[in-house]
Amino acid sequence: MSNVDTVIQDLVIANRILAKEDVVDAYGHISIRHPDNPKHFFISRSLAPDLVERGDIVELGLDGQPVRDETRSLYLERFIHAAIYEARPDIHSVVHAHAEDILPFGVAQATPLKPVIHSGSFIGANVPVWDIADKFGDTNLLVVNMEQGRDLAKCLANNNVALMRGHGFASAGRSLIEVVRLSVYLPRNARALLRAKQLGGEIKYLSQGEIAARAAGYSPYSLETWRAWEYWANKAGCGHLLTKPEAAAHTHAHKK
Amino acid sequence: MSNVDTVIQDLVIANRILAKEDVVDAYGHISIRHPDNPKHFFISRSLAPDLVERGDIVELGLDGQPVRDETRSLYLERFIHAAIYEARPDIHSVVHAHAEDILPFGVAQATPLKPVIHSGSFIGANVPVWDIADKFGDTNLLVVNMEQGRDLAKCLANNNVALMRGHGFASAGRSLIEVVRLSVYLPRNARALLRAKQLGGEIKYLSQGEIAARAAGYSPYSLETWRAWEYWANKAGCGHLLTKPEAAAHTHAHKK
Amino acid sequence: MSNVDTVIQDLVIANRILAKEDVVDAYGHISIRHPDNPKHFFISRSLAPDLVERGDIVELGLDGQPVRDETRSLYLERFIHAAIYEARPDIHSVVHAHAEDILPFGVAQATPLKPVIHSGSFIGANVPVWDIADKFGDTNLLVVNMEQGRDLAKCLANNNVALMRGHGFASAGRSLIEVVRLSVYLPRNARALLRAKQLGGEIKYLSQGEIAARAAGYSPYSLETWRAWEYWANKAGCGHLLTKPEAAAHTHAHKK
Amino acid sequence: MSNVDTVIQDLVIANRILAKEDVVDAYGHISIRHPDNPKHFFISRSLAPDLVERGDIVELGLDGQPVRDETRSLYLERFIHAAIYEARPDIHSVVHAHAEDILPFGVAQATPLKPVIHSGSFIGANVPVWDIADKFGDTNLLVVNMEQGRDLAKCLANNNVALMRGHGFASAGRSLIEVVRLSVYLPRNARALLRAKQLGGEIKYLSQGEIAARAAGYSPYSLETWRAWEYWANKAGCGHLLTKPEAAAHTHAHKK
Repeated sequence: MSNVDTVIQDLVIANRILAKEDVVDAYGHISIRHPDNPKHFFISRSLAPDLVERGDIVELGLDGQPVRDETRSLYLERFIHAAIYEARPDIHSVVHAHAEDILPFGVAQATPLKPVIHSGSFIGANVPVWDIADKFGDTNLLVVNMEQGRDLAKCLANNNVALMRGHGFASAGRSLIEVVRLSVYLPRNARALLRAKQLGGEIKYLSQGEIAARAAGYSPYSLETWRAWEYWANKAGCGHLLTKPEAAAHTHAHKK
Repeated sequence: MSNVDTVIQDLVIANRILAKEDVVDAYGHISIRHPDNPKHFFISRSLAPDLVERGDIVELGLDGQPVRDETRSLYLERFIHAAIYEARPDIHSVVHAHAEDILPFGVAQATPLKPVIHSGSFIGANVPVWDIADKFGDTNLLVVNMEQGRDLAKCLANNNVALMRGHGFASAGRSLIEVVRLSVYLPRNARALLRAKQLGGEIKYLSQGEIAARAAGYSPYSLETWRAWEYWANKAGCGHLLTKPEAAAHTHAHKK
Repeated sequence: MSNVDTVIQDLVIANRILAKEDVVDAYGHISIRHPDNPKHFFISRSLAPDLVERGDIVELGLDGQPVRDETRSLYLERFIHAAIYEARPDIHSVVHAHAEDILPFGVAQATPLKPVIHSGSFIGANVPVWDIADKFGDTNLLVVNMEQGRDLAKCLANNNVALMRGHGFASAGRSLIEVVRLSVYLPRNARALLRAKQLGGEIKYLSQGEIAARAAGYSPYSLETWRAWEYWANKAGCGHLLTKPEAAAHTHAHKK
Repeated sequence: MSNVDTVIQDLVIANRILAKEDVVDAYGHISIRHPDNPKHFFISRSLAPDLVERGDIVELGLDGQPVRDETRSLYLERFIHAAIYEARPDIHSVVHAHAEDILPFGVAQATPLKPVIHSGSFIGANVPVWDIADKFGDTNLLVVNMEQGRDLAKCLANNNVALMRGHGFASAGRSLIEVVRLSVYLPRNARALLRAKQLGGEIKYLSQGEIAARAAGYSPYSLETWRAWEYWANKAGCGHLLTKPEAAAHTHAHKK
């Protein structure tokens, strides 16, 4: 397969994984930047992620509009993706979702969401909360144009995740696998923190140094990262679609 | 299919969706007003929603009694539906269920259930709690006649949902899809609010303006609404029963 | 099928239902009194309930010992059943299980488990907590002889459920369907109450009159009870084993 | 099958059980000491436990290195296993996992994890919390060499489980079945304790005498233990791989 074909196939897999892992339901979406043209990105047409197939993927520009004639409906909130790609050249994949267990952290103001477990480190030391009402007043809470998308991207700044008050989150990664992993473990970190609060007493969060050490050691095509991708794809019923990158196929020699 | 045939098929799908999404279990039911005769409505005979098929649907009048000879047993609480249709000409579909996560809000008196997430906006700004004991004293808590049904409908008034103390909820929508969607997201909103309380501090609820903006933008046959219906039907194993209305099939033209 | 054959088949169904509904896992068991001989009861040999088939059912006496030569191992805690049948002639079916969400109520001493939702009414107004240590000191917490079983039965007295501190519960019903239903809704009532406590404020429990009204109206072979039994059996994959009793097949005539 | 063949097959079953029971996900692993050579142990190559088959099992020494030439990648954290086998000759099987519901107890400092339910007794009276930062400062929290593994083993000392702050747990058992059972019920005990705290009031933990009585009565090949193993294996879809040991096949004779 060509690189673009592989990217689209991986995007299909990612859609199914996010559905199976309850990060998205009928709503929520994931995109990936075009590997050869940083001003374009791929995302599904308006469809529940669990039902997405190759033919559903469309190519959009950084204005959130399709780059070819398109008669099918598109996600209303595709501007979240467009605006983050515009603002962050380092980012290659974006998720927007409503994963249930992060929602309380967007509306309760006493407990900021911070990494408290090692798999949650990738959310980063700081998870800003974006409130659409601050700038746009009473809306339907959806991000439906570039101005709103850019305001969210500004709040996200150089972080990996922004919570969206009363709505969900937007996460940004350097690769598709990275943003999927981040989005799967984000609700787990939220649950662990919520329950730790219930147990009471002081909570030991990950230190800045630990967060940095984990980020430094992360490689999207390491064997360890691939292990989760392979597992999730199989669990979601699309293990047969996997294309193992060479980097992940690389093996260590243990000689006696 | 005739309009009535489609309505009945959609009602079968709705039964299965509510079962799959844990809104109902062996108990709970959904009805839809007859499209041509506002004084009649369709609902299953007494049967767990997950097992409902076309032949199980019966036609009742606004007195809660079957409009034709009927030898099969009917839901004891069908008067909930009859009374709401009687009181609310604007309503075309009703759900009564015991979804577990809304139950605490019917019995704990310190925290009213209000929209705290965007998908919960459809429950409306005010969710009254109806206590059958207030008027009827010690009962088995079931709504088994028109007098009780009317008292519940009076408490519901112009709202979309009424909690029933120690029992469940009744929800009312302008369409089948709307009431299903509302009933699926109602427990999610309840969980988000419960957990936000546990995190502590002030909670940012949806504003009146946001609730209004979302209600104004809602169309039961928009693509966005259909997306969820299609997803839930597939998840419940009855995607093959779907009949796409023309409105949802309508696509946007994105021209370059 | 003879009456005994039907009873054994229903007991198989009940085992599978309790497994599917997470009331039991590898451990926990259900028994039914012999329909023709009140001094005998049926229960599976030592086996996870989800795996129980007809040939696994054994017949025990009120001493907890098999009434025929038996080479297969039996449940260590069968004395719970024997002792309750001995003490309570009105009881025809017994469950012992460790359903997770009732466990906190057996060890936390500030919040007694009481009916707070209508489907929980069958646990009864009073749910005593039996602590094996009170009489037997440091044990492995298992009820492994008639003396311990009788002490538990004494604590249960005329109630429907006794919690067993740090261990689980024993429930007793006038029929198999009744005790299954009670055991399925017991953890749900526990969860509703736990969450109501978290919401804060005064909690409205079911009144004594409501509990009595629901108990009075209950019939194990009513259509409403059968509806749940049929649903759970289908969900557990053994709908094909169902034998509909005549009482449940009885239908209401709605004449126009 | 030879003893080693049986051990490897059981290890495959154990991997699948831990995945099905949500003790592990893509990450986490289980090992078993070589039955004939206490200086070797078996563990999967780097692979999600749910996908492990016989051919994936490798043989490592107490330095955590493979005893034969090996080109496949190994778990980074295999040193947890090596160090525990080195320190504890009595231990024959080790699990390391991130089971979600134990995580809060590793980071909240007010509520130690202790047995509160009988199936949780096997975690032992004392569950130490190991913080990798105490000795190693800011790391990625992974145990990637013998020095770190030994420090964890030292903290574990003669206990059955050590929590790892912000990361997960390591558990150690005298047999494969024992450590699987312990690891499945560890999160259940954690949940029961968390919820008991939420109910408020004094909590009745298992007494030292009860914990000791349960440990004394435990036999990895008793019928009662086998019952769970058989159940979990069937639930995980690998009941056909079971090899019933003679001890478990032994039956009691109940003569009249």
